Amino acid sequence: MTNAMQAKLRPFRDFQPKHFRFETDEDGRVATVTLNRPDKKNPLTFESYEELGDLFRALTRASDVRCVVLTGEDNNFCSGGDVFEIIEPLTGMKMPDLLAFTRMTGDLVRQIRACPQPVIAAVDGICAGAGAILAMASDYRFATPEAKTAFLFTRVGLAGADMGACGILPRIIGQGRAAELLFTGRVMTAAEGHNWGFYNEIVGRDALLGQAQTFARRLADGPWFAHSMTKKMLDQEWSMGIEEMLESEAQAQAICMATGDFRRAFEAFAAKAKPDFKGN
Amino acid sequence: MTNAMQAKLRPFRDFQPKHFRFETDEDGRVATVTLNRPDKKNPLTFESYEELGDLFRALTRASDVRCVVLTGEDNNFCSGGDVFEIIEPLTGMKMPDLLAFTRMTGDLVRQIRACPQPVIAAVDGICAGAGAILAMASDYRFATPEAKTAFLFTRVGLAGADMGACGILPRIIGQGRAAELLFTGRVMTAAEGHNWGFYNEIVGRDALLGQAQTFARRLADGPWFAHSMTKKMLDQEWSMGIEEMLESEAQAQAICMATGDFRRAFEAFAAKAKPDFKGN
Amino acid sequence: MTNAMQAKLRPFRDFQPKHFRFETDEDGRVATVTLNRPDKKNPLTFESYEELGDLFRALTRASDVRCVVLTGEDNNFCSGGDVFEIIEPLTGMKMPDLLAFTRMTGDLVRQIRACPQPVIAAVDGICAGAGAILAMASDYRFATPEAKTAFLFTRVGLAGADMGACGILPRIIGQGRAAELLFTGRVMTAAEGHNWGFYNEIVGRDALLGQAQTFARRLADGPWFAHSMTKKMLDQEWSMGIEEMLESEAQAQAICMATGDFRRAFEAFAAKAKPDFKGN
Repeated sequence: MTNAMQAKLRPFRDFQPKHFRFETDEDGRVATVTLNRPDKKNPLTFESYEELGDLFRALTRASDVRCVVLTGEDNNFCSGGDVFEIIEPLTGMKMPDLLAFTRMTGDLVRQIRACPQPVIAAVDGICAGAGAILAMASDYRFATPEAKTAFLFTRVGLAGADMGACGILPRIIGQGRAAELLFTGRVMTAAEGHNWGFYNEIVGRDALLGQAQTFARRLADGPWFAHSMTKKMLDQEWSMGIEEMLESEAQAQAICMATGDFRRAFEAFAAKAKPDFKGN
Repeated sequence: MTNAMQAKLRPFRDFQPKHFRFETDEDGRVATVTLNRPDKKNPLTFESYEELGDLFRALTRASDVRCVVLTGEDNNFCSGGDVFEIIEPLTGMKMPDLLAFTRMTGDLVRQIRACPQPVIAAVDGICAGAGAILAMASDYRFATPEAKTAFLFTRVGLAGADMGACGILPRIIGQGRAAELLFTGRVMTAAEGHNWGFYNEIVGRDALLGQAQTFARRLADGPWFAHSMTKKMLDQEWSMGIEEMLESEAQAQAICMATGDFRRAFEAFAAKAKPDFKGN
Repeated sequence: MTNAMQAKLRPFRDFQPKHFRFETDEDGRVATVTLNRPDKKNPLTFESYEELGDLFRALTRASDVRCVVLTGEDNNFCSGGDVFEIIEPLTGMKMPDLLAFTRMTGDLVRQIRACPQPVIAAVDGICAGAGAILAMASDYRFATPEAKTAFLFTRVGLAGADMGACGILPRIIGQGRAAELLFTGRVMTAAEGHNWGFYNEIVGRDALLGQAQTFARRLADGPWFAHSMTKKMLDQEWSMGIEEMLESEAQAQAICMATGDFRRAFEAFAAKAKPDFKGN
């Protein structure tokens, strides 16, 4: 990497957002983002949307953070766009402002998907509207048995077509179940979410954050450059035919095989040692 | 809406088809289409294919109907293309006529997907061949425990590539299960259909039609303009990459936010009242 | 078919590969490919990759084989690329050779998907790395309760983007579960594989090969030309929108309706006899 490129990378452990909590573990490899307006079940506001988008955009250049945990304070994940702080102002806006808003919210999903770090959602309690979208846009999802996940845009007279839900959700749980959730806005229970492939693991409330961070740490200590390629290609191939998939993966994996991480992983395997992944 | 546009909208409650039954509830909001040749388990014929296609095409301009229930008479849904009325004549046709036929059947699926009304399938008993396709092409699917769903084209020497099945079915139940059903033509039981995400709900025979109509009524009394956008975008984004999805939904949802329905939904929420959705 | 075309078709029952076993039943309709280096759990090598690719490519012109069973010797399916015969040499290669390798492995998947014969995987024991890919690339999957399926590229410092996994696996088991398997490299148990739609059937170890061959025989005795079209269209439509799907299937099915197999299937149905499918 050139000095010019290096210069752009910034350590993140001292990042101090205004509208959510941000902490990292000791060496900064795992960052935890906590939505923290627990009195209202951690809603999103215009400000927190923007600042979350900025965070995930900036993570693309983080020199330290390798995995992100996304959670909410006090036994709720996120109640979505606040009805009086977001919905009400929207009802009075003209089209250009409405479009600017829907593009801004969509951009948060874009940045979550575009950053190289896997994003691990740790979901308890209410996970609704844009909150459900944040879980959907993550790479791996933990939930407690008490998690209530609802894509409830229909409840305020809107379409399920919000922040990518009509395209992304069917690819996770299938077209029929996605249609059901988006047309009705009904709660998907934790058990349904697990059976349908939305939630990867169900864990008790007390263990939730710890298990999500342990899982994140495992990915962070693994071949994180290769993980970033896995994440990229999982998205990249959604609308490809088989021919294009195969060539794209031939190139992507050849890139990974050209890294020292690949050689180090083999040497560690041969020596029955633990590999040290350096991301190069 | 201009007068010219208004003029094209027609109430549907008096629609009188020849080859199936068509009824609406009092205000015409929920229409029920019943295939009714119960002696042969409600097969499709050249005539009923055409008339069904015409119905769904015309529904695009309906001023009253907001949701459609699709069902069959006398404890069967639909046995598909009649062997002697459809299959036999096809075996003697030349290519241009064969292609005209497969395009006509595919067009029925196109119209079911293109009309703005969510289509709710209420499936009991036999649901086979083109009947299974009708269920697949619907937006929400109820079945009884006795429903037997089979994509049995292979049984008459044909491919599973019929009316969109090779593309649509995998997006509902996954590629592996879809391949199984299409290669073997075997029955998918109601329990399998529910576990696999094909059927949204399993209900007893006596309750089937009532529950489907109640569900349809709920959608019809909801934000039906927004529902039509949800339906449109669920289809529209099947072959999009993430970037295109996010921009498409930003536009689609901005359109919904510009409706009075959105404002009315907020006002009703704030007043703890029930919103009255007008579709504008 | 012209004589020139006929001349290119070759019977396969006498095919004698060097790096795996190849057998057919009496009339050559069902071929069984057995990976057979059981001391190392049937790994792939540079040579067996190439020879398998050659086999599936050649099957496109086989005049006899109508269905293929893919299995491994001695209670394991396939352990993937051998660590010392494949991984170690790769760690010392330059980019053009790395890309030549990833293209060659991807080409094996391409040929499995491109040959007209349905490929039936019969999986017991270890099914790892490129072995898991072989199962994934098949059309129908049997497993024993002892099957352990792992996409473990991450364990050698590589991405899950290997031989199409980031594109194909999500379409079988959904994006969330695919991400989990590809990020972690963990074992998917046989029960999970069945619940998630990866494995179509779970059968006991003693019955595995027999049931897979019986299933293959059933497909081989069925409308095999139509089956080849089902296989082709299931792949072809992955990145199509609904309009394109419907037109593609109208054409594909019209082709099948123009075959004698279709007429023979109808005549056999009318006569309550068993049809004899000739593939024309």
